[in-house]
Amino acid sequence: MKEIGYYCGKTAPIEELSIPMTDRAVYFGDGVYEFCICRNGVAFRMDDHINRFWNSMTAIRIQPDFSKEKLKALLCGLLAKVDNEISALYWQISRGAAPRAHAFPKDAHPCLYVTVTPSRLSDLQKPIRCMTKPDIRFLMCNIKTIDLLPAILASQEAEEAGCTECILHRDGRVTECAHSNVSILRDGRLITAPTDNLILPGIARDRLLAACRRHQIPVEERPYFLEELMAADEIIVTSTSKFALRCTEIDGKPVGGRDQARIELLQNAVYQEFLEETNA
Amino acid sequence: MKEIGYYCGKTAPIEELSIPMTDRAVYFGDGVYEFCICRNGVAFRMDDHINRFWNSMTAIRIQPDFSKEKLKALLCGLLAKVDNEISALYWQISRGAAPRAHAFPKDAHPCLYVTVTPSRLSDLQKPIRCMTKPDIRFLMCNIKTIDLLPAILASQEAEEAGCTECILHRDGRVTECAHSNVSILRDGRLITAPTDNLILPGIARDRLLAACRRHQIPVEERPYFLEELMAADEIIVTSTSKFALRCTEIDGKPVGGRDQARIELLQNAVYQEFLEETNA
Repeated sequence: MKEIGYYCGKTAPIEELSIPMTDRAVYFGDGVYEFCICRNGVAFRMDDHINRFWNSMTAIRIQPDFSKEKLKALLCGLLAKVDNEISALYWQISRGAAPRAHAFPKDAHPCLYVTVTPSRLSDLQKPIRCMTKPDIRFLMCNIKTIDLLPAILASQEAEEAGCTECILHRDGRVTECAHSNVSILRDGRLITAPTDNLILPGIARDRLLAACRRHQIPVEERPYFLEELMAADEIIVTSTSKFALRCTEIDGKPVGGRDQARIELLQNAVYQEFLEETNA
Repeated sequence: MKEIGYYCGKTAPIEELSIPMTDRAVYFGDGVYEFCICRNGVAFRMDDHINRFWNSMTAIRIQPDFSKEKLKALLCGLLAKVDNEISALYWQISRGAAPRAHAFPKDAHPCLYVTVTPSRLSDLQKPIRCMTKPDIRFLMCNIKTIDLLPAILASQEAEEAGCTECILHRDGRVTECAHSNVSILRDGRLITAPTDNLILPGIARDRLLAACRRHQIPVEERPYFLEELMAADEIIVTSTSKFALRCTEIDGKPVGGRDQARIELLQNAVYQEFLEETNA
């Protein structure tokens, strides 16, 4: 089987599963999600994703009616049903199904939603182009919510501009991309925005920092600005699905290209960790 | 019949209609909505709501495959199927059903979703309590999107504090409430935030301004701040479902109460217009 879905206790092909009209995910965006990349039936850094899922649920006050262990068992069981080399494992939870009213419903149960679909890996060797745009998102970007419309509009603009990602900034301060984190190399150091409410604490970003520690590359987690981005030695875009990509053009201008050995070391380190953890 | 649902061409009781897992409303909040209050089968200011719906779709680049007239006919047809004195007419559109990818799907059709449910009118004579909170929402609040999580969390906090609404502010500048607009009376004038990207251009707010014009009450559409709110002669909270409510307590402190004749004139004007337009 290539793909499978799960919704509120029922497992079936995705096109056979139905969501009630009253699920608060449908009309309120009242939920949070996670996404893992999987190889040989193994989800990379699954525990990290589950822990972040718990943080997101706590932040928006969704109380799951299952434990981390139960969720993990469910996700692994679904993954075991497909036979792709590379799969995308997506799951979300909403506050429940209830008539539409803003405050939390009294008697609703959270609705868990999972899909496993075939995926493929990006070409990590290929440099990418990015564009920039003001960050108009809400001030809770540390929570992985399904309220993604500003990220969608930015992603579409990027695609139309022939770019892989859109780098967002608040009055010049670089936050992250529409669906990735972004870090820079400068004078042999890695600089990346701190994990406040303006960015998602990315798992790939975390693995990038771990790779820096292993390779004695100093890390500065601090606000940085468009000027530093454009003048960086290298620019690294990290995400769960694409690991660590090298950006060589921003808004049509060539960028980076001055510390190729170090960025390749980091790209390979992140990717190798994925390969090692997912060796069946 | 008390309620009815519609989804992508199918009309049925709400609990019998199903949404595909791949509707982008479900996992991306990739849609916009409207809500009308209806009496005797007539939706109040339906054309205004439909026009705003078109503005919202244009803003997020959803291209409907129907005209305003077709939508209106569909909504009126659904309304005619229920026999409530007061109904809530809700509709939303998403960009379509497609495998999850941020950029717009190439071949998806927008998914139209409608519910008609029984409702009731609030007691307009009863003054309300409000609380205040920093406005952390995204900078496209003029678009009526289904990405409502910050509004939901604020609404829940308000409910737990025994309040009807949560008044939001950006560094002290009053924007609107979690799901209402808020205006103040001062020295016989109405002051209300301008319709920029920080607030929804509310239909009830619009009717309040029309009532001001009819009654020669000068209107200032300009930014105003918490200090002016707390010192206002009266505070008016407007929304489609609750018309115009009088707020007499904010964050536990008594407010307003110094221009009761004028606020009652305005409350009645907004409500009377609703009664007149919806007389069957």
